[in-house]
Amino acid sequence: MKDCIFCKIIRGEIPSTRIYEDERVFAFMDIHPISKGHALVIPKVHAENIWEMASEDLAAVHAASKAIAHALRSALDTEGIAVLQLNGAAVGQVVMHYHLHLVPRVKGAPALPMSHWELTPGNMDEIKTIARKISAEIK
Amino acid sequence: MKDCIFCKIIRGEIPSTRIYEDERVFAFMDIHPISKGHALVIPKVHAENIWEMASEDLAAVHAASKAIAHALRSALDTEGIAVLQLNGAAVGQVVMHYHLHLVPRVKGAPALPMSHWELTPGNMDEIKTIARKISAEIK
Repeated sequence: MKDCIFCKIIRGEIPSTRIYEDERVFAFMDIHPISKGHALVIPKVHAENIWEMASEDLAAVHAASKAIAHALRSALDTEGIAVLQLNGAAVGQVVMHYHLHLVPRVKGAPALPMSHWELTPGNMDEIKTIARKISAEIK
Repeated sequence: MKDCIFCKIIRGEIPSTRIYEDERVFAFMDIHPISKGHALVIPKVHAENIWEMASEDLAAVHAASKAIAHALRSALDTEGIAVLQLNGAAVGQVVMHYHLHLVPRVKGAPALPMSHWELTPGNMDEIKTIARKISAEIK
């Protein structure tokens, strides 16, 4: 897409620190890293979010993410990795081109902002009602 | 795996609110929901994390997650969905069986805990050094 910043990165019109590339996938370092090693994995074909992603690109992005996760563990002193992918401005998606955040936590680094939340038991009747609605819509 | 709570859920030894199932994948509602519609997608074959996941299971989990993301949008008044997957106790993984969180934000609901963080520019020299280490390790 002409004005998409990630499409420009893929085309080399904007510089990036590339770490991986194949036919369908491009991966590079986040320039606003949450932690040491924070990388982004994106499809080369523009898709805004999970709803728009072609199945082949989705599979390719996640296959690449596994290879990169192994590399993050080998290259850095990684104790864990959070994989985060946001769909929609309402949940904080800033660049409207599907991207997977790989956020490692290296030894001695502070906890990641997205990895801890309070565990509060849900209302099971409400959960069951919602589940019926969701499963009825799965194609 | 015998004592894994998610393996027990798959085998039906522990009840769950199932929303989807296929040959490789099982999906059910999180009983400690972060938001309305919070679902989990897991592989049927036990794998602890992204490093251990078989490629076919990884692809199947993400194909299912796309179908479920569509269903979440159809069934609920979803403005966005955060997809989160944690690898390692150091990044808050509690159940040691690979699981993908699908966390929708429905209209009018508060911001999700994992979707916003401060954007601070990184040190580009440091980022480039790390990137070289990572890309050298990608198999």
